[in-house]
Amino acid sequence: MKWSAGRPVAIIDEKLADKLSIQVDDRIKITGGKNQIISVVDTACNLTKMNEIAVSKEVLHKKFPKYVDIELAPKPESISLIRKKMQGKTLSQTELKTIMKDISDNALTESEIAYFISAVYKSKTSIKEAIKMIKAILSTGKTLPLHSGIIADKHSIGGVPGRVTPILVSICASAGLIIPKTSSRAITSAAGTADAMEVICQVNFSIPEMLKIIKKTNACLVWGGSLNLAPADDKLIRVERLLNLDPETQLLASILAKKLSVNSKYIVIDIPYGKNAKVTKTQAERLSKEFKQIAKYFKVNLETFLKKTEKPLGNSIGPSLEIQEVLSVLKREKDAPPLLEKRALELSGLLLELTKKAKKGKGEELAKTILDSGKAFKKFKQIVEAQNGDVNKKFQKTKFQKTINSNSTGKIYELKIKELNNIARIAGCPGDKNAGMYLYKTLDDRVKKHQPLLTIYSESKVELKDAIKQYHKTRPIRIK
Amino acid sequence: MKWSAGRPVAIIDEKLADKLSIQVDDRIKITGGKNQIISVVDTACNLTKMNEIAVSKEVLHKKFPKYVDIELAPKPESISLIRKKMQGKTLSQTELKTIMKDISDNALTESEIAYFISAVYKSKTSIKEAIKMIKAILSTGKTLPLHSGIIADKHSIGGVPGRVTPILVSICASAGLIIPKTSSRAITSAAGTADAMEVICQVNFSIPEMLKIIKKTNACLVWGGSLNLAPADDKLIRVERLLNLDPETQLLASILAKKLSVNSKYIVIDIPYGKNAKVTKTQAERLSKEFKQIAKYFKVNLETFLKKTEKPLGNSIGPSLEIQEVLSVLKREKDAPPLLEKRALELSGLLLELTKKAKKGKGEELAKTILDSGKAFKKFKQIVEAQNGDVNKKFQKTKFQKTINSNSTGKIYELKIKELNNIARIAGCPGDKNAGMYLYKTLDDRVKKHQPLLTIYSESKVELKDAIKQYHKTRPIRIK
Repeated sequence: MKWSAGRPVAIIDEKLADKLSIQVDDRIKITGGKNQIISVVDTACNLTKMNEIAVSKEVLHKKFPKYVDIELAPKPESISLIRKKMQGKTLSQTELKTIMKDISDNALTESEIAYFISAVYKSKTSIKEAIKMIKAILSTGKTLPLHSGIIADKHSIGGVPGRVTPILVSICASAGLIIPKTSSRAITSAAGTADAMEVICQVNFSIPEMLKIIKKTNACLVWGGSLNLAPADDKLIRVERLLNLDPETQLLASILAKKLSVNSKYIVIDIPYGKNAKVTKTQAERLSKEFKQIAKYFKVNLETFLKKTEKPLGNSIGPSLEIQEVLSVLKREKDAPPLLEKRALELSGLLLELTKKAKKGKGEELAKTILDSGKAFKKFKQIVEAQNGDVNKKFQKTKFQKTINSNSTGKIYELKIKELNNIARIAGCPGDKNAGMYLYKTLDDRVKKHQPLLTIYSESKVELKDAIKQYHKTRPIRIK
Repeated sequence: MKWSAGRPVAIIDEKLADKLSIQVDDRIKITGGKNQIISVVDTACNLTKMNEIAVSKEVLHKKFPKYVDIELAPKPESISLIRKKMQGKTLSQTELKTIMKDISDNALTESEIAYFISAVYKSKTSIKEAIKMIKAILSTGKTLPLHSGIIADKHSIGGVPGRVTPILVSICASAGLIIPKTSSRAITSAAGTADAMEVICQVNFSIPEMLKIIKKTNACLVWGGSLNLAPADDKLIRVERLLNLDPETQLLASILAKKLSVNSKYIVIDIPYGKNAKVTKTQAERLSKEFKQIAKYFKVNLETFLKKTEKPLGNSIGPSLEIQEVLSVLKREKDAPPLLEKRALELSGLLLELTKKAKKGKGEELAKTILDSGKAFKKFKQIVEAQNGDVNKKFQKTKFQKTINSNSTGKIYELKIKELNNIARIAGCPGDKNAGMYLYKTLDDRVKKHQPLLTIYSESKVELKDAIKQYHKTRPIRIK
């Protein structure tokens, strides 16, 4: 019946449950052939026969034969470890590995994971702890068997809309770097790179498929979650998303574990700061130092890019709208957002310098030459096609939209990006690809009364209504 | 099909979900007749017709007609309030009420509630906050329409096994007090009073049924959870139970909200302390002060009972074993545990003095007279019968058991109650009524090599094995 519950769930008959002393919400271990999985229990009456279980799609991600064994899964040891962390105590490497293993084995419920995240969220970040966390995350997953070539990568801590990654990957792969780019879906923003790429191509691949794409194009732009490179981290992100949380230790660990799992040796981390970004200047500098310390420990060349960033790099927020802007930059269209292009060139330049493809101070120039030559767009087209997509895809019209006009004349002196992100999420991002917003004006722009400020797009009437309500409640764009 | 998922879940067809832009794990509002409920969404293919939904038992706790409306439930406002609390900010009365309302309306998932609990767990307790929390919890529930007589109540913060409540209620109700006792199920211990009472009678009643029982007997011993007196609190307890948490603010609020909701005017709080109890002496004194301050605010007469308690009051841990000990005290059997009797008399005495049924210093004496006279047992029998039970019930034999003998001769110098509780829980408490343990020896007792120390009882082989493993790992009973 292709029942999808968001997590492995098994329905067993009430009487069988009674017989086995299993209760609703207990966890059972399902074993069959060489596979086993831990699943949450629902019970039912007369849905399944006494010796049958009905399982959700998520159980069938592993292959099971017709006959399986079930038994009550013992209470995971992690529970007491999480309580320990909540009491402010430090967890050892082995203890963290136990928690990450239980998370990736699905032995912990989402509520239990939420407790773990909040404990990490509350505790002070330490480099030692982040390193332990990275090792623990890596211990649960696979690593990419890439060993030759200059393997490089880029990551942005996010917070400011603007889809730089696909442009950077195209430029740097043209220059000969190997970029096994795995991206996340949005955590606190309205779209992640994987969400945006998925509008024009597939992003769910297995590791062998990913290697094939890289062999063909020097790069890829895939979703990290389906690769099982760091399964514990993927689940952590899922639970963090409930509350839009991004705990710092978890952030450091999450980013670097992903990079290490694909064997990257050269990494550029983009850390936009400012009152509109995720972090302040002080926080950005601390993060930068922490990233470099951890990189040193793992023997990786890492550079950070710190820049005050007060406005979105493009005009768009939302998966589909953002990928359209990426295309406009790569295709050298006249109306391409200049800030987005500039940031992509700066970051590409930094990575080209870090990998010695360009001399110190000459990276951005080289990046510009590659972009202008059309090579970057050609590379992007190649990658998208290798991922079964089409750069010439016709973009769908969103079902509902609402344009909001300015009710005064003046200058935009405040543009709250976090709130705009929040409104885009209320409108349906990142789940609904076509949801989002288009900003006609940005910070410091002059605007006249009745001129359009932005259009909100949504696939649902309720959500559009809520998004507009939120807009008027929070007034993220202020004019004086 | 009587599908039970532990929370309201609705399965809708994949195509319908697509059409309505609803995704797995979204929440929908189901409206029909005068009722509505918020439910989590699973999707399926060909299980339900396009215009049908399949719902779990928990949805049907409310009555719905054949045709219902469904719509995407807007994201609850509580989410951002919980984030605010996690960032260490203070919530206003209105904000706390919003969260409690969303919790009792099922608009928050358990993971989101876990975030809230951990935020409360981490923040420092303040009287002001506890008062706000109590008002918020009360605002979501009903109150008991009891207005005449001396309405009195007792609560123990727990931590030390020993089922005092049924004895105290029987004694004090005999003396003419009205005791509308609602008990919880176990949170961190192996059994709550409701779990133990349920072995010999029903404990799930509606408010009119509860009033009938009180009218007949002056008292009742029912489960608070089914009464909807403080539905938000019941859900909080359920999520706390996942990790055996008992945050202090939440503890104060939870206890007093329950007492206020039944209109109690005289309350005794039992606060056992010591290294084996839940709290230290200092914590007990702080709690006592806080309880009195909050009681004063709500104009309630409250007394606390602080006593160093290092050993279980009886020999038993677990619902069925504990209720058997209660009966032995009430029936004045020779082998009744003397500590259990003593504590019940002390607490009853305190409550009789607080309500002026006895003179200062004469309460315990009066309690003893009532117990010895057989009136208390008669009262207990009356209550159990009013709750459709039988004090002469034959107790079932537990399926699996294992006696552990001492491997040395000496004196028991350490007995870790928390760990014994934990082992009893691993053995199946409180879910399996017959699970638990019987202690042949206690702190300060002398024991010979090969003499039995305790028997662990369980309804499941796996759980018994795990419990024994945990016993040997943690060695909760030390002999020298």
